Amino acid sequence: MKMAASATEDHKAPRTERGRKTLRKLLDAAAGEFGDHGFHEASISSITRRAGVALGTFYTYFDSKDEIFRALVADMSEAVKFAAREAIRPDMQALEIERAALEAFLQFAGDHKEVYRIIDEAEFVDPDSYRSHYETVGTRIVERLQRGGQDGAMRGDLGEIEAWSLMGMNVFLGLRYAIWRREGDPGPKEVARVANRFLRKGIEG
Amino acid sequence: MKMAASATEDHKAPRTERGRKTLRKLLDAAAGEFGDHGFHEASISSITRRAGVALGTFYTYFDSKDEIFRALVADMSEAVKFAAREAIRPDMQALEIERAALEAFLQFAGDHKEVYRIIDEAEFVDPDSYRSHYETVGTRIVERLQRGGQDGAMRGDLGEIEAWSLMGMNVFLGLRYAIWRREGDPGPKEVARVANRFLRKGIEG
Repeated sequence: MKMAASATEDHKAPRTERGRKTLRKLLDAAAGEFGDHGFHEASISSITRRAGVALGTFYTYFDSKDEIFRALVADMSEAVKFAAREAIRPDMQALEIERAALEAFLQFAGDHKEVYRIIDEAEFVDPDSYRSHYETVGTRIVERLQRGGQDGAMRGDLGEIEAWSLMGMNVFLGLRYAIWRREGDPGPKEVARVANRFLRKGIEG
Repeated sequence: MKMAASATEDHKAPRTERGRKTLRKLLDAAAGEFGDHGFHEASISSITRRAGVALGTFYTYFDSKDEIFRALVADMSEAVKFAAREAIRPDMQALEIERAALEAFLQFAGDHKEVYRIIDEAEFVDPDSYRSHYETVGTRIVERLQRGGQDGAMRGDLGEIEAWSLMGMNVFLGLRYAIWRREGDPGPKEVARVANRFLRKGIEG
C-alpha cells in the first residue's frame, strides 16, 4: 500500500500529475532508505536510485536530506490518519470508532514497520516535527473524545489527559504487536478488541 | 536527586565504596552529556570532565562510549523503577499503587528530563537495550495486574495487552506533562488522579 500524497505543500509542490507521481516515488523511496539505514547513513543518491529518478530531479522537489526527511514525517502522519479514517464508517458510535481506528493502525504499522523508526528518529533529527506530530494527533483525539461526550457514548468530561493516555496506549500496542510482533501473538482485531474493553470499562475489578 | 546505583553488574563492578562513588559520578555525568548533546556528539573526555575524574579512570569502568551508554540505559531503567517503588506503601490497594507510581514517575521525569531523550536514543544506538527496557517494564506491569486480579481490586483476566496499554499511557503522560510541560498545565498529582480514573472506569458514558 502506498501512502496518501500530501506534505511539501508550502514549497515546490508539483502542479502536474507526473510531478505528483515523482514526488510520491521520492517519498516512498525515502521511507525505505531512512527506515533501513536511519537518517545519518541515508543519502540523497540512494533515495533517487531507489526511486528510479535522476539525482537532479531530487532538487526539483527538495533542497536537502533534512527537507525530505521533514516532508516524510508529515507524509507519514497523514498516512496514519488516512489509514484510520478509511476504517471508520459514518454509522459507528464513538467507542466503536476508537476500536476500528486502532485495528487499522495496527494493520498499517505491521505493513509499514519503518513508520516507527522514522517518526522516532525525528526526535533527534527534527524535534519540531516530532513534537508537532504528537500534538496534532493529540488535538485530533481531544476532538473525538468531545464528540463522544456529546453523543453520550463517552463521559462528558474528557480532555487532554485522556487523549494523551489513549494515544500512548495505541502507540505502545503498535510497538508491541506490530513492530515487535512475535509468533503466536494476537492479531490486530483481537488486540483492538481487548484494548477497547480497557478503554470502555477500565480495569477495576 | 541522584539515581539509584546499579548497572554494569556483570563487568568491572567496583568493589570499594570509593569505586562505587566514582562509577556513580561517571553515570550522572554521562546522563548530562548524552542528554545535552545526544550520543553521537557526546565524548568520553567531556564525560570525565563533567565527572571531575581523570580520562584514564573512565577505562577502569567502561571500555567505550557504547558501553557507558548501555550501562546508563540500564541505570535509568532502575532509577525509574526505584522512584516508583519509593512512592508505594505496603497498605496500598492495586489501583492506588498505579496512581502513586504514575505520580512519582511524572515527578521523576520532570526532575530528569534527559531520561526520555536517552532511552529514546537507545532505539538507534543500542536497539537491544531499548527493547529490553520496555519488555522488562511490560513484564513488571503484567505481574502488578495479576496481583490486582488476585486481590480483587482489578479484573481477573488482565494480561499483556492491558500492561502495554498502561505503559503507553504513562510514557505519553510523561512526555506531555513532564518533558513538554506548559505553563498552567496540571501537576503530577492531578494528572495521575485523572489518569487513574481512566484506568479504573474507562471512558464509556
